[in-house]
Amino acid sequence: MTTLITGGTLVSATGRGAADVLVDGERVAAVLAPGSTVLGVDLPARVDRVIDATGKYVIPGGVDAHTHMELPFGGTAASDTFETGTRAAAWGGTTTIIDFAVQRAGERVQDGLAAWHAKAAGNCAIDYAFHQIIGGVDDDSLKAMEGLVDEGITSYKLFMAYPGVFYSDDAQIVRAMQKAADLGLLTMMHAENGPAIDVLAAQLVEAGKTAPYYHGVARAWQLEEEATHRAIMLADLTRAPLYVVHVSAKQAVAQLAAARDAGQNVFGETCPQYLYLSLEEQLGAPGFEGAKWVCSTPLRSRAEGHQDHMWRALRTNDLQMVSTDHCPFCMTGQKDLGLGDFRAIPNGIGSVEHRMDLLYQGVVTGQITLERWVELTSTTPARMFGLYGAKGVIAPGADADIVVYDPAGRTTISAATHHMSMDHSAWEGFEVDGAIDLVMSRGRVVVEGGAYHGRPGHGRYLKRGLSQYLV
Amino acid sequence: MTTLITGGTLVSATGRGAADVLVDGERVAAVLAPGSTVLGVDLPARVDRVIDATGKYVIPGGVDAHTHMELPFGGTAASDTFETGTRAAAWGGTTTIIDFAVQRAGERVQDGLAAWHAKAAGNCAIDYAFHQIIGGVDDDSLKAMEGLVDEGITSYKLFMAYPGVFYSDDAQIVRAMQKAADLGLLTMMHAENGPAIDVLAAQLVEAGKTAPYYHGVARAWQLEEEATHRAIMLADLTRAPLYVVHVSAKQAVAQLAAARDAGQNVFGETCPQYLYLSLEEQLGAPGFEGAKWVCSTPLRSRAEGHQDHMWRALRTNDLQMVSTDHCPFCMTGQKDLGLGDFRAIPNGIGSVEHRMDLLYQGVVTGQITLERWVELTSTTPARMFGLYGAKGVIAPGADADIVVYDPAGRTTISAATHHMSMDHSAWEGFEVDGAIDLVMSRGRVVVEGGAYHGRPGHGRYLKRGLSQYLV
Amino acid sequence: MTTLITGGTLVSATGRGAADVLVDGERVAAVLAPGSTVLGVDLPARVDRVIDATGKYVIPGGVDAHTHMELPFGGTAASDTFETGTRAAAWGGTTTIIDFAVQRAGERVQDGLAAWHAKAAGNCAIDYAFHQIIGGVDDDSLKAMEGLVDEGITSYKLFMAYPGVFYSDDAQIVRAMQKAADLGLLTMMHAENGPAIDVLAAQLVEAGKTAPYYHGVARAWQLEEEATHRAIMLADLTRAPLYVVHVSAKQAVAQLAAARDAGQNVFGETCPQYLYLSLEEQLGAPGFEGAKWVCSTPLRSRAEGHQDHMWRALRTNDLQMVSTDHCPFCMTGQKDLGLGDFRAIPNGIGSVEHRMDLLYQGVVTGQITLERWVELTSTTPARMFGLYGAKGVIAPGADADIVVYDPAGRTTISAATHHMSMDHSAWEGFEVDGAIDLVMSRGRVVVEGGAYHGRPGHGRYLKRGLSQYLV
Amino acid sequence: MTTLITGGTLVSATGRGAADVLVDGERVAAVLAPGSTVLGVDLPARVDRVIDATGKYVIPGGVDAHTHMELPFGGTAASDTFETGTRAAAWGGTTTIIDFAVQRAGERVQDGLAAWHAKAAGNCAIDYAFHQIIGGVDDDSLKAMEGLVDEGITSYKLFMAYPGVFYSDDAQIVRAMQKAADLGLLTMMHAENGPAIDVLAAQLVEAGKTAPYYHGVARAWQLEEEATHRAIMLADLTRAPLYVVHVSAKQAVAQLAAARDAGQNVFGETCPQYLYLSLEEQLGAPGFEGAKWVCSTPLRSRAEGHQDHMWRALRTNDLQMVSTDHCPFCMTGQKDLGLGDFRAIPNGIGSVEHRMDLLYQGVVTGQITLERWVELTSTTPARMFGLYGAKGVIAPGADADIVVYDPAGRTTISAATHHMSMDHSAWEGFEVDGAIDLVMSRGRVVVEGGAYHGRPGHGRYLKRGLSQYLV
Repeated sequence: MTTLITGGTLVSATGRGAADVLVDGERVAAVLAPGSTVLGVDLPARVDRVIDATGKYVIPGGVDAHTHMELPFGGTAASDTFETGTRAAAWGGTTTIIDFAVQRAGERVQDGLAAWHAKAAGNCAIDYAFHQIIGGVDDDSLKAMEGLVDEGITSYKLFMAYPGVFYSDDAQIVRAMQKAADLGLLTMMHAENGPAIDVLAAQLVEAGKTAPYYHGVARAWQLEEEATHRAIMLADLTRAPLYVVHVSAKQAVAQLAAARDAGQNVFGETCPQYLYLSLEEQLGAPGFEGAKWVCSTPLRSRAEGHQDHMWRALRTNDLQMVSTDHCPFCMTGQKDLGLGDFRAIPNGIGSVEHRMDLLYQGVVTGQITLERWVELTSTTPARMFGLYGAKGVIAPGADADIVVYDPAGRTTISAATHHMSMDHSAWEGFEVDGAIDLVMSRGRVVVEGGAYHGRPGHGRYLKRGLSQYLV
Repeated sequence: MTTLITGGTLVSATGRGAADVLVDGERVAAVLAPGSTVLGVDLPARVDRVIDATGKYVIPGGVDAHTHMELPFGGTAASDTFETGTRAAAWGGTTTIIDFAVQRAGERVQDGLAAWHAKAAGNCAIDYAFHQIIGGVDDDSLKAMEGLVDEGITSYKLFMAYPGVFYSDDAQIVRAMQKAADLGLLTMMHAENGPAIDVLAAQLVEAGKTAPYYHGVARAWQLEEEATHRAIMLADLTRAPLYVVHVSAKQAVAQLAAARDAGQNVFGETCPQYLYLSLEEQLGAPGFEGAKWVCSTPLRSRAEGHQDHMWRALRTNDLQMVSTDHCPFCMTGQKDLGLGDFRAIPNGIGSVEHRMDLLYQGVVTGQITLERWVELTSTTPARMFGLYGAKGVIAPGADADIVVYDPAGRTTISAATHHMSMDHSAWEGFEVDGAIDLVMSRGRVVVEGGAYHGRPGHGRYLKRGLSQYLV
Repeated sequence: MTTLITGGTLVSATGRGAADVLVDGERVAAVLAPGSTVLGVDLPARVDRVIDATGKYVIPGGVDAHTHMELPFGGTAASDTFETGTRAAAWGGTTTIIDFAVQRAGERVQDGLAAWHAKAAGNCAIDYAFHQIIGGVDDDSLKAMEGLVDEGITSYKLFMAYPGVFYSDDAQIVRAMQKAADLGLLTMMHAENGPAIDVLAAQLVEAGKTAPYYHGVARAWQLEEEATHRAIMLADLTRAPLYVVHVSAKQAVAQLAAARDAGQNVFGETCPQYLYLSLEEQLGAPGFEGAKWVCSTPLRSRAEGHQDHMWRALRTNDLQMVSTDHCPFCMTGQKDLGLGDFRAIPNGIGSVEHRMDLLYQGVVTGQITLERWVELTSTTPARMFGLYGAKGVIAPGADADIVVYDPAGRTTISAATHHMSMDHSAWEGFEVDGAIDLVMSRGRVVVEGGAYHGRPGHGRYLKRGLSQYLV
Repeated sequence: MTTLITGGTLVSATGRGAADVLVDGERVAAVLAPGSTVLGVDLPARVDRVIDATGKYVIPGGVDAHTHMELPFGGTAASDTFETGTRAAAWGGTTTIIDFAVQRAGERVQDGLAAWHAKAAGNCAIDYAFHQIIGGVDDDSLKAMEGLVDEGITSYKLFMAYPGVFYSDDAQIVRAMQKAADLGLLTMMHAENGPAIDVLAAQLVEAGKTAPYYHGVARAWQLEEEATHRAIMLADLTRAPLYVVHVSAKQAVAQLAAARDAGQNVFGETCPQYLYLSLEEQLGAPGFEGAKWVCSTPLRSRAEGHQDHMWRALRTNDLQMVSTDHCPFCMTGQKDLGLGDFRAIPNGIGSVEHRMDLLYQGVVTGQITLERWVELTSTTPARMFGLYGAKGVIAPGADADIVVYDPAGRTTISAATHHMSMDHSAWEGFEVDGAIDLVMSRGRVVVEGGAYHGRPGHGRYLKRGLSQYLV
C-alpha cells in the first residue's frame, strides 16, 4: 500500500513549507518537493492512493505521553479502556500514547507491567508504550528497575502525593533516583506534598467544607511548589534527570525555570486543563458539578494568573510539552463516590481526544506558533521519551503517523459527540477554530471524513529508547 | 544537474536518522529513505552524480549571522573582503553569512546599504544577506528604516558602545526600538556601556597600562551586564524584540535568562572565542601577542567561569545561537596600530572558517548534542533572521546548502593552512575531532576532497523575511 | 535650663520602655528609670521644668534627609524658604533636615554651597545640614568634591534624569563614583532614565496628551528600574556605596534587594507619597488637579501594587528610611505653568510637616512596628548620613531633639491648617490616629500645646561625619 | 548595692558613645553623660562601687539563644551541666542562655519541661530560659503547646532531621505550625532532610567510608537547602513565623533571603563554627580528629565559599543572629562512640564560652561593625525571643547584664584554659584580638580580673514574652 499526501503545508517543530509525503507500507518513504515529480518520474500515477491536503497542515501524529487507561483509583477505575481510550485518541489526532503500568507496595514490578501489557495487548487503535509507576520503592523494586530498559521502558514515575497509595518518602525517592541515574531512566514525578495535603483536606472535611472546590483549597500551590523544589534538589543530589508531570502552579514553573537556568536536566509538562480551566470557574461550579474537574494537581486560581503563566511557560520552554493526564471517570457511579467528601472523588479529567485541538487553539489566539504546536504535542514528547525517529517527525523511515489538520475547520466539543467513555465532558461547549481532517497510523488511515476506520489491535507496543532530549 | 547524497546520517535540529538527499538544480528535491529506491524507481541510476556519505553526517550548511567583511574600523579595515571571507566560510562549512551594512551619523541609510551591496556583489562564494547598522539614529535614519523590510533586511543593529563612532544614546535607542517594533524589525544590540568603558580605558592608559590585557580590564563584565539589562528594559518598554550580539559575560546571560523566563522576546548569541578563550591566557599573553584576541565584548576571565557558563547557556537555550563576529585584522599593519595603547588596536577576531568545527568539538566533549550543534549553527540562525525554509534545514524546496561532515576526520587549525586573509590565527594549534568533508552551496559542490571548487559571484544576495523565531 | 521628661514610653529603633529623660542645656544628660530618683536624689525637684509625658511616646526628633527649600526649578522656585520650611518641619516633629546645595554645570561647587549656606543661615527653626548636588561633573567639580568632607558634607547627589539640567551621563557617574569611593562620600542617585523619559514625554505632548496624568505615563517604571540597576552596577564597578532616593517602583526595590543580598552597599529611601498615593487616583484626578502630585519619580499605579510593595520593603529593610523629598510649589503661579504641557509643571510635593504623622499611621494600621517607625524616620537617617549620636537617638550626650507623640491624639491634614508655604495640600483631608504633642530642638521647646515657640536662627548648621550605616 | 561604670564607650545595636551606667541593685538605674554629675550631684561619690571602663566597650551581656546543656543524645549526654555550662558562658560574656527542654514522641510536653526545670534550677550562674522541643507532634503535644506561653516559653523547635528521634514529618509540621501561628509561638526548625541523609549515610558506611569527614558528605548542602525551602513554604502556607537554626549552607541562606524579600516572617541564625571552620580542614582532619567537629548541620566546604557567605549574610541581615548550638561532648568516652561509624559520633560542638570573642574578631577583621556585633550577639537574640527590655540593651530598667570588653586585650582559646566541661576545644589555638574584662549579671560582678565571682543559683529562670522582632 503506497500513499501520497500532496498539496499540504508540512509543519515541523522548526518550520513549515509546501511538501508532499510518500508513504510506503507503514513508513514514510520520502518527503518531496510539491508536485511529486522526481527526476521525471510522476509519483502520483504510481501510488495506490493520493490524499489531497491542499490548504491543510500535514503534521506528525500526536504523542500523548501521559494517559491512564483503566487505572484503578479510589475503588473504581478510569472509564476508558485501552480500546475506547486509544480510539478516542485517534479521533483526536493522537497516534501514540504512553500509559503507566503500575506497581504498588508489596507487588512485583514485573507483575504490574505484565498486567498492563495484558490490558493493552490486542486492544489498541494506535501505538502505545508504557512508563512504569513504582508505588513501592524497596530492594525488590529497585532491582526490578534494572530490567526496565530491556522492556522498552525508559522512564518511571514516583509520587510525592497519595500517602498509603503510591507515595514515596524522600528516602525512597533518593534510592530510586540513584538507581535511575545509573540506568539512564528518566524520573517522572507527581510533585505535591501529600502528607501536608492530607492534613488540610481532613481539616476542611471536618469543618464541613466537603464540596469539590475544597479539593483545590487543600492542594494549595505552596504544596506543589514545595514538592517541585524538593524533587529538583533530590535530583540535583543524585544527578538524576527529572520530569515533573502535570505542572499547574506558576510558582512550580518558577522552580523549574531556575533549575534549568542553572543547567540542571529538569523538565515539565502541563495539561490542557491547566491552560484553560480554573479553580473559581470549574472546580467552584455550583453543587457537585465541580467534581468533573477534580484532578491532581488541581485547577488553579485564574485571579492568581496561573493559566496565563502556563501558556507563557510553553512559549519560553520553561515547560517542554503538553500531555493530557487522561484519567476519565463518569459522574454517575464514579465521581459521585465523593458526594459529601471531596476526598472520595476519583481524580481525573478525560482529554485524550482533545489535546491537539485545544493546543491548536493556542495557535489561533497567538499564544504559541504553529511550529511550537507540533513541538509541544508530538516532537518533544517523542524525543523526551525515546520514540523520536519512529514518532514525532515526518521524515523518511519514520512511522507514517500523520495528521492532516484543517485550519478552516471548526470543532465543537461535547459529550454528545466525543468518543471517550465518559458521561460528560470537561470541555463541554468549547469551540476550536480548526479540525482534524485525516489521521494515519503507521500508514493506515484510521480517521477520515468524520468516520473511524481503525480497529482494535492495530496499535503495537513500542519499546522506547533512552530520552533523546537531555541536554 | 542532479545529485544524490546517499548513505549518510541526516542530522536536523530535532533528531538524526539514515536518509538520502536528492538535489535537483539548486534545491533539495526530496529526502528519501536509505536506498533511494522510490516506488520501484532506482534513483541513483538516474542522477548526474551520487555522493557517498556513508559514516558521515549530512547537515544543513552553516549560517553565520554575524560577520564584518571589509569593515572600516579604527583607521583600517577588516582584512577579509567579501571574496576572501566567503571563500573561507565555504571552506569551513558555512554557506550563508549575514554581514552588516553600515550607516554612520550624518549618512543616509540607503547609501550605506548601497555601499555594502557594491562591496559584496559578484564577489561572494556563498549566499549572503545584510543586517543594517544604524550608527546615527535621527529622523532621517528612522524614516529610512521603513524601507528596510522591502530590501530584505529585517534586522538592524545599534551600539551602546563606541561613543563617537556607532554609539546610540538611550533616547536614540528608544526611538529606534519603537520604530522597529512597528515594522517587525529585530533589534540587534552591542550591549556594552561605552561611555563608562572609555573612562576606564583612558585611566588605564594614563596609568601606563597600555597592553592588550587592559582592553579586557576596561571592558569590565559589569558594563556588559549593565548594558544588557538596559537594552532589555528599553525593549520591554517599547515592546521590541531584542537580540544581543556576542554575549561573553555570565552575568549578562543571567539577565537574558531572567527576561526570557518573564516571557520577553529576548535572544542572545555567543561566539566561539567566548567558549574557548580567556582573559588570562589569550588577552594576557606576553608582550603584544594578546592583540590577536582584542575584540569586543572582550574575552572573559576563566577563573570566573564565563566560558563554562556560555556552554551551559547554549545547552539551556538561554543563548540561542553561535555566530563568529568575524572581523579579522592582521597583526602587522593593523593590530600593531595599538602598540603602546590598547585602545588603538582594531577590535576583532577571525573565525568564519572555524565555527562549525569549533562547535562540533563541543559535541565531542559532551557540551552539546549533535542536534544542538545543527540548531545553534544553522537552523536557529536561519529562523532567527528570516531565512528558514531556504536555509537552515535539509528539506524539499530548501536551497541545497549541505555539508557532509566526517566525525572520523581531524582538523588542525593554523594560519599556515587557513583560508582567511590574516597573518595569524586566533586558533593556532587548535585540534578538532572531525572535519568538513564536502560543502554544497545551492546544489553546487564548492569544497570537496580538500580542494576548493567555488567561484566569486556564485553567492547571491538573500532577501530575508521577518524573524521566524519570535515566541 | 534643665528639663525632665517623665512618665512616657521611650521608644528607640530596637525597643520601648518606661524611662525619664533629663535634658541639661542643649543635650540629653541622662536617661533614667521612671521616677527619676537617682541614688536618693529627687531630680524633678531640681530641674527648671518637668514635662509630663504620661501615656505618650518619647522619641528622637525626626530627621528628614531629603528636602529642597527654595530650590530653583523650571523657572520658579520651591515655595518654602528655609524659614517657612523648617518651621513647618518643627510643627511636624522633624528636628533636622538635610537639604541639597546645588552646583550646576559650569558653576563652582564651592559657590553653590556658599549660596545655600546664605539661604539657610539665620533662618532655620531647626538644625540643618546639606548634601551637595553635583549637576556638572567635570575636572573642577571632581576636585571640589575633595573639600566636601571638611565642610561637613559627606554625601552628594547625581541625576540620571533631567538632561540639560542636572543630568550626568554614565561617564560622569563613573568618575564621580570613583572619587566618592576614595573620599568616603555616599553617592545619592536620582535613578530615572532621563533621555528615554524625554522621548516619551515629547511624544505624549505631541499626541495631545498633556494632562498631569501623562507625567506618570512618560516616567514608566521600566525607566526607574533600569536606572536603578545601572546605578547599582556602576557602583559595583567603582566600589562606591550607593543611596537611591525616592524609590517608587516595586521593580526598582527588587533591584536594590538583589544587590543587597549580594552584599553590595546599596540603600534606598521612599517617601510618604509612594506609600499612600497613586497614579490612578491622584495624578489622574480630573482636569489639572493632578498637578498637585506631579513629582519625580512619579506616583505609581495602585493596580500594579507598588504602594503595598513599598510598605513591605520598609518592613523587610529592602528600603531603609523615609524622607519627604519636600519640594513644594503652589498651584497658582507655579504648578499652573504646566497647564497644557505636563512637562512644564514644577516637580514636587510638600510633606515635610507630615512625615512623622503619615508614617505613624503605618504603625496604627500594622504596616510597621513602633520601633521601626523611629528607625525609619530618625535613627537610620541619622546613621546613614553621619549624624548619629547627636541626632537619631535619645541618649546621654545626644542633642535634646525630642518629640512627645500622643497616640491618643488625632491629626487632620489640610491646607487650611498646615504651616508650609503652599496654597494646597497634597494630603488634604488625610486623618491620622496620633498627634505631635511637644517638640524640643536642642533642649528648647519649639512646639507645644498647638503653639509654635521656635524662632528663625535657632537651627544650626550641622557638619556631618561619614555614614555610620555602611555594612 | 550601687555601681557606676564610668569612662567607657557604650555600644548599642545602633551606635556608640561615651556614657556612664548607673546600676542600682539588679537593674540599670540610669545612663548618663560622662562625668556622672547630674544636676550638680556627684554620683561617683554616692555609689558603692565605681568601675573604670576607660578605653573599653560597655555592652549588654550576651544572649546565647541556642544551647543544649546535659542533652541526652546518642546514648550519652552533653558534657556540660547547667552549672558548668552557664559558668563557662559567664566567663565568655554571655549572661543569658536559652536552652531546649525536650519532649519526645510518647512523652508529655509538661513532663519534659519539668525535667529541664529540674536540671537547671539552682544550678545556673546566669539567667536562663527555655525553648521547647516537640519531638512528637500529636494531639496531646499540640494541646500542650497551648500552655507554653504561660510558662514563659514562646518558641518551640521541630526537627526535619533525625528520623526516629526528634523527626517530624510534613503532616506533623503543618499541624504544629498551625497551632503556633494561632498561639504566637515562634517555630524554630532544624532544617535538614533527615530521611535522605540517612540513606546517604548508610551507603557511605556500607562502602567503608566511616570517618568523621563522611558525616559532612552525607549531610549534603542540597539537603539543608531543600529542608529550608520546605520549612519556608510550610510556614507560608500556615502563616507561621519561622526561625531556622544553625544555618550553614549558602544556598539555604539564599532561600531565607528570597523569602524575606517576599515579605515572609522568616529568620535564621548561624553559629561561630560555620563562620570559621570547614569540611576540608576540620572535619577532614587526619584519623578520628574530625570527630571534634561533628555537628549538624555540618561544617561546609571552604572551597565552595560557605564561610564567607555566612559573614556576608550577617552583614546583610539575611541572617539575624549568632548562637552557639553549644552541645559539647568529650573525645574520650563520648565522641569515640563513633570510631568506625561516623553515625555514632555524638553531634555537637562546645562554644558557649567563646561566642562573644569569636564574633568580636569579625569586628577586628572588618566583617561586621561594632554595633552589628552587639546586635547579633545580644540585642536581636533578646528581641527575637521576647527578652528585650530586660536583656539585650543597656537602658534604665533593664537587668544589669553588662560586659566590659577590652579591645586592647587578647584571648587565646585552649582546652587547657577554657571553663567548659570538655577534654578538648573545637577552637584550640584560636587567637582573638580583644578580651572579656568584666561581666555583670543582674548587677553582680561574676567575672573580673580573670577570676570567677559567680555562683550556682544566681541565675534565674526567665519567662519570655512573644517575639519582639516580627515584621
